[in-house]
Amino acid sequence: MEKDNLTVVLHSKGDLRLEQRPIPEPGPNEVLLQMHSVGICGSDVHYWQNGRIGDFVLKQPMVLGHEASGRVVKVGSAVTHLKAGDRVAVEPGVPREVDEFFKSGHYNLIFFCATPPDDGNLCRYYKHNANFCYKLPDNVTYEEGALIEPLSVGIHACKRAGVTLGSSVFVCGAGPIGLVSLLAAKAMGASQVIISDLSSDRLAKAKEMGADFLLHVKKEDEPKEMAKKVEGMLGCMPQISIECTGVQSSIQTAIYAARSGGVVVLVGLGAEMTTVPLLNAAVREVDIRGVFRYCNTWPVAISMLASKKVNVKPLVTHRFSLEQAVEAFETTRQGLGVKVMLKCDKNDQNP
Amino acid sequence: MEKDNLTVVLHSKGDLRLEQRPIPEPGPNEVLLQMHSVGICGSDVHYWQNGRIGDFVLKQPMVLGHEASGRVVKVGSAVTHLKAGDRVAVEPGVPREVDEFFKSGHYNLIFFCATPPDDGNLCRYYKHNANFCYKLPDNVTYEEGALIEPLSVGIHACKRAGVTLGSSVFVCGAGPIGLVSLLAAKAMGASQVIISDLSSDRLAKAKEMGADFLLHVKKEDEPKEMAKKVEGMLGCMPQISIECTGVQSSIQTAIYAARSGGVVVLVGLGAEMTTVPLLNAAVREVDIRGVFRYCNTWPVAISMLASKKVNVKPLVTHRFSLEQAVEAFETTRQGLGVKVMLKCDKNDQNP
Amino acid sequence: MEKDNLTVVLHSKGDLRLEQRPIPEPGPNEVLLQMHSVGICGSDVHYWQNGRIGDFVLKQPMVLGHEASGRVVKVGSAVTHLKAGDRVAVEPGVPREVDEFFKSGHYNLIFFCATPPDDGNLCRYYKHNANFCYKLPDNVTYEEGALIEPLSVGIHACKRAGVTLGSSVFVCGAGPIGLVSLLAAKAMGASQVIISDLSSDRLAKAKEMGADFLLHVKKEDEPKEMAKKVEGMLGCMPQISIECTGVQSSIQTAIYAARSGGVVVLVGLGAEMTTVPLLNAAVREVDIRGVFRYCNTWPVAISMLASKKVNVKPLVTHRFSLEQAVEAFETTRQGLGVKVMLKCDKNDQNP
Amino acid sequence: MEKDNLTVVLHSKGDLRLEQRPIPEPGPNEVLLQMHSVGICGSDVHYWQNGRIGDFVLKQPMVLGHEASGRVVKVGSAVTHLKAGDRVAVEPGVPREVDEFFKSGHYNLIFFCATPPDDGNLCRYYKHNANFCYKLPDNVTYEEGALIEPLSVGIHACKRAGVTLGSSVFVCGAGPIGLVSLLAAKAMGASQVIISDLSSDRLAKAKEMGADFLLHVKKEDEPKEMAKKVEGMLGCMPQISIECTGVQSSIQTAIYAARSGGVVVLVGLGAEMTTVPLLNAAVREVDIRGVFRYCNTWPVAISMLASKKVNVKPLVTHRFSLEQAVEAFETTRQGLGVKVMLKCDKNDQNP
Repeated sequence: MEKDNLTVVLHSKGDLRLEQRPIPEPGPNEVLLQMHSVGICGSDVHYWQNGRIGDFVLKQPMVLGHEASGRVVKVGSAVTHLKAGDRVAVEPGVPREVDEFFKSGHYNLIFFCATPPDDGNLCRYYKHNANFCYKLPDNVTYEEGALIEPLSVGIHACKRAGVTLGSSVFVCGAGPIGLVSLLAAKAMGASQVIISDLSSDRLAKAKEMGADFLLHVKKEDEPKEMAKKVEGMLGCMPQISIECTGVQSSIQTAIYAARSGGVVVLVGLGAEMTTVPLLNAAVREVDIRGVFRYCNTWPVAISMLASKKVNVKPLVTHRFSLEQAVEAFETTRQGLGVKVMLKCDKNDQNP
Repeated sequence: MEKDNLTVVLHSKGDLRLEQRPIPEPGPNEVLLQMHSVGICGSDVHYWQNGRIGDFVLKQPMVLGHEASGRVVKVGSAVTHLKAGDRVAVEPGVPREVDEFFKSGHYNLIFFCATPPDDGNLCRYYKHNANFCYKLPDNVTYEEGALIEPLSVGIHACKRAGVTLGSSVFVCGAGPIGLVSLLAAKAMGASQVIISDLSSDRLAKAKEMGADFLLHVKKEDEPKEMAKKVEGMLGCMPQISIECTGVQSSIQTAIYAARSGGVVVLVGLGAEMTTVPLLNAAVREVDIRGVFRYCNTWPVAISMLASKKVNVKPLVTHRFSLEQAVEAFETTRQGLGVKVMLKCDKNDQNP
Repeated sequence: MEKDNLTVVLHSKGDLRLEQRPIPEPGPNEVLLQMHSVGICGSDVHYWQNGRIGDFVLKQPMVLGHEASGRVVKVGSAVTHLKAGDRVAVEPGVPREVDEFFKSGHYNLIFFCATPPDDGNLCRYYKHNANFCYKLPDNVTYEEGALIEPLSVGIHACKRAGVTLGSSVFVCGAGPIGLVSLLAAKAMGASQVIISDLSSDRLAKAKEMGADFLLHVKKEDEPKEMAKKVEGMLGCMPQISIECTGVQSSIQTAIYAARSGGVVVLVGLGAEMTTVPLLNAAVREVDIRGVFRYCNTWPVAISMLASKKVNVKPLVTHRFSLEQAVEAFETTRQGLGVKVMLKCDKNDQNP
Repeated sequence: MEKDNLTVVLHSKGDLRLEQRPIPEPGPNEVLLQMHSVGICGSDVHYWQNGRIGDFVLKQPMVLGHEASGRVVKVGSAVTHLKAGDRVAVEPGVPREVDEFFKSGHYNLIFFCATPPDDGNLCRYYKHNANFCYKLPDNVTYEEGALIEPLSVGIHACKRAGVTLGSSVFVCGAGPIGLVSLLAAKAMGASQVIISDLSSDRLAKAKEMGADFLLHVKKEDEPKEMAKKVEGMLGCMPQISIECTGVQSSIQTAIYAARSGGVVVLVGLGAEMTTVPLLNAAVREVDIRGVFRYCNTWPVAISMLASKKVNVKPLVTHRFSLEQAVEAFETTRQGLGVKVMLKCDKNDQNP
């Protein structure tokens, strides 16, 4: 094995560096992965630009990256379900301890790649808990494997929303998370999905990925009027609004738009305090539900990708080699395209 | 049958009158009831004082009252499950038509007693759809029957909250709705209920009715600090907050207090727009759910009352004869006691 | 309007007749329909051959047919949501009264077309409760409208089963109900569906309609071995088995095949008493759930057909004019093809 | 610490011995417990009499006992939530690995006390995974702590059944599991519980513990007639049947008795193949659900015991010192009383 372990490290707010790190040794329950494709997430950029997200504050250098796939090159002594050569997708969150949440299937208090103080996997070689590495079938590419992480957010949002056969869904925002929510909603049986955005480019991408209706919004639009437009375009109020922007006026629109007895899922993160028509939601029994990451989504996502029921490939609009990481981050920061993918394997830069 | 049908009619904002109305004739699917006990609800007082609640505006004289029980005196030609002499509790909402909501068990677009333009049942004789009159067992009193309406709000709130065995519950507000939520939560298996209020009298009543912990709040208290106090008193964060005041700071406390993965149910109605820590709720997957009345609660409530698992009797703190209706409304308006009951049957003023 | 109301009437076991009946007059809440397409169901043939199904016994002549669509030609005085000329699908079950089941959204004690003593709609003109007639969009054909009835069985079965994104499903039996279950499962997000049958023709049809794996079974096959084959073909045990044959050995296979924590849905009706590995199901927490018709499926089905997410058209293998009804029934009795459609409108025999 | 670790070991079918074993040393995540109270379960006796239960076969000597509580005497290096002196209840099942079931909150493939090949805790000193030891509040006795294990079966059964406010429940069998199901059902809000048994002594105990109706059955009773009796006594068909005997005729009765749309939970384990009226269950949408042990019940049970909402104390009818273990097992084998408790701490034989 080579010695090169080029790694993308955030040293402090604004200080992103490419540097060599030692190749780690996997523990008994771990595997060592040669990373192949790692997507850049908005949160990576946020840490780079701000040094923190809410209560998570960068206090020491941290490796970025958590949308990842790679190839097993070494397995720990206790690992039986994986072997060298296996292609895997990486679930970035690993439970730290067996607490009440974990026992009930909500593993939330966890190690999480690229969330301070835990390192991510934007590097050549990375070790991870083997139970949270999922083997990819031959007909699923590495990039599809890396995209399971954002897709998982969409799946979890749609599960929290209760999307089912015949659902009509309003997705607010056509960025990466809005698009994966669209994909997941369609795959779960939604008959109609309407999606909104400020950008017509993003809406065009949404159309390409299966949106039935596009709502071009402007910053000054009135939430109640936007809700009326949604109803007019769908021919009925949607049962479900999936809010992916975190913007207050969009959250208000999501609430007004949802049908009585329906659900608003908050995926986008905004300000700490928000002013919303809570009374309107309450008396119409419109539930407001948040999402915190996801759980138990990797196997489902893999089976959907393998059976070709979900096509995430159009999400990738830019590719850079690992050496070009800074340029890749800059591209994401400028909001160009949808998903920027870093290619970590020098010998295989294919999707 | 006598001719006296003394009736409490709200003619316009502030203009409450006692007047004679003709005794109605039941249709084929209706029963005529001799009213026995009718509780006064905050909404009755609200219409009296304001002439409206939200979009429901008093435009013509309306009979008040919707927490009611009485005795069947005449049955329509198509009624088979009731007969003259049966003692019944009245579910005040009756579906108007078979629409999508009704087909799926949520009958919401309905005739509703004492909601404009529909008349209530604060009178001597009242006719009602027989399918929404429920026979009371011998060991359930008329007043218990009338209290099924507010109790239903508590049951529905606890069902929406998912109260189950071992739940710890935070009830905000110890008025009638807070107290029935407390009763319902305990009956559904909650192990610990903490209840808050501004008034120590109300808290004392809550203690009498089974609250495990009392939180005396003041208007200037900080929501985050109140939430910490709740956690301190319970020894853990409650899974469920049931907000019965509609006050913004109390809603904020309810959100901060709820455990990750928990639920906040909004029962109290407040301002149209509310500023809340939505981000805090969203990232901790604390669901926010409203309640609109109730459905399918009368049979459940009757079985709980008959089996003595729920004791609503302490709720009644004042009784007035129907002739004293104005005095009774004034008592409710001043917030004296908990529940004021009007006794409509001249020959039987017992509970 | 013409006078011709040719009608398919079952007079007694084995005595199927075509006869003229008067054109009915719709009541206030009813519409009169000119029938267009009516599918023949196994239950129609069962009544014809046996004069009964379980406790439902033919005691007087009954019109057959309940998979139907038609055109509104007259509306009752209270009907507002339909008008003459509207093309509609007919939900054959209409609640008789507002009982506990209906209030909770399970309308089961009902008028049901072609179930003794209620008449069906295999005729030229038929009146029906307008609330149970659903307008078809222009891009949904009459035959698709008629097929909503069997499709509803599949949707209801998959809902009872909890099919969701990534589910792997084992459908036992590739007759009409097995095929609609396959369609519904795929539309609800199932990643893999395996389907079994004795007939390779039926399996070929299932393949055409989207089945991922085909299991050709023989009468003498051992249930445990068949279950092993299912696991082998899928690469895992299915979470869900949908049993559509009613045959004891197939029910046993469905139980053995289901993954721990999974579900077996019984759609096929068999003998009164069945010998099954109940212990095996119980200790593995494999739930066994039946289905009784469906409810609240028409709007969902219409939106899926309109959005082209479900294609039921390949189900129709034979068409006959209403005058050829006896030949059509004979075709169904012999098990030829999948779905036989009767065309009731002399002037429009198109799909 | 003393050296005495008297232990109840089953060497082979019928060969139960009391012998000394070394006091174990706790690993990093374990605690060493001085056992206080251990109840004898039917499965302990079954292994003793038969050497196996289904596929679990005794192949080497095994310590019996899994209904246990004790006092922490030593904590492993990584344990932070417990300390020496803490009184704890022991959850006997501990996940072996992080698999798909564990990730979704169903930890089933586990180490389980006194299930071959895993040792139980009928001894003086026993080490256990600290995450599965739950601290007891001061007002909960050791015996209550030990009884959490059977109570958990009742709680899990009632959760699987969906017992909620106003449920009417039919419990088949008044042995220990029937009685804890009764307790759990009542605590979850059931308004009426009817319980059946062959023995009038057991029924008397059920009456003492809160049963509303008693059904004395005889072996030759017809299931359909018994179901009619249940309906007659309750005044309605129960929504839920909880079957705790495993006897075929009782399972049949449980099915016939359940209301349409209701649930039958199978707790009792019987023969591999069972003949049941599956058609009757299916067409009435009566779900049949098994239970496999329980999960996530200890914290709930402790909070119910601490708040005195559930009283398990009357279950204990016999107590023996650990030295009298053989006599204690013989007592259980003969079906005397309800629960036999072994007292493992020489210096504290209190409840």
